[in-house]
Amino acid sequence: MTTLQQLLNMKSRDVCRCHPDDTVLDALKTMADRDVGSVLVMDDDRLLGVFTERHYSRKVFLKGRSSPNTPIREVMATGVVSVGPERTVEECMALMTEKRVRHLPVMRGEEVIGVISIGDLVKSIIADQLFTIEQLEHFIHG
Amino acid sequence: MTTLQQLLNMKSRDVCRCHPDDTVLDALKTMADRDVGSVLVMDDDRLLGVFTERHYSRKVFLKGRSSPNTPIREVMATGVVSVGPERTVEECMALMTEKRVRHLPVMRGEEVIGVISIGDLVKSIIADQLFTIEQLEHFIHG
Repeated sequence: MTTLQQLLNMKSRDVCRCHPDDTVLDALKTMADRDVGSVLVMDDDRLLGVFTERHYSRKVFLKGRSSPNTPIREVMATGVVSVGPERTVEECMALMTEKRVRHLPVMRGEEVIGVISIGDLVKSIIADQLFTIEQLEHFIHG
Repeated sequence: MTTLQQLLNMKSRDVCRCHPDDTVLDALKTMADRDVGSVLVMDDDRLLGVFTERHYSRKVFLKGRSSPNTPIREVMATGVVSVGPERTVEECMALMTEKRVRHLPVMRGEEVIGVISIGDLVKSIIADQLFTIEQLEHFIHG
């Protein structure tokens, strides 16, 4: 069972973040620079919310707001679902499906130690399957 | 091995689509109404491209364009990766990881018969695991 801690060990530990007073435009630029689809909204080290491409698509222009004039605090999702690093890929998949989210902050107590995306989970499953296949082939060919 | 055809049988077959001359704003509204993150760009029944929340976040405002004045043809992705309905969930996962996409049009010949998202794949894996667990429990308890 692969844990989130193991996945985080293979990723950059530098969390993509912004401040609640930053504008939507700031957050978009940050996400583009980092080539990710979500940003954690944090005040110092306290997690306040999350902002994703989904929120940008639904809650800005379609609701009469503009990217340069809207602070992230106005459109971020609060009540963020987070997980501990000891959780497994399987538990995380079930949680994402149930909550309909594609990103989960990983927290040790109050500290954010990383973010896991649905793409990270799928990549991990693929890697596990390749490993199993190699083991089987090794077994067959001796 | 679950195939894409089996997944499509459990989904709405009504593909979320727009015309290349529609504006980005039109496409955003369509995606919001259908509660999805991508739209196929089609001229009659011919697939020309795909437009997703990722493209909206990266290629519109950040590139000096505006939603009501930009036709989808200007910002859609062309050269869309598609798959046949006989492909398995596992093959599809590998393809999404390799190509870094979260949506795959499913085509029978030239005809689009559905779209599979990375969320659909994860949901399918969860369901398969639950089924295996139930089978094992049945075996144990007789």
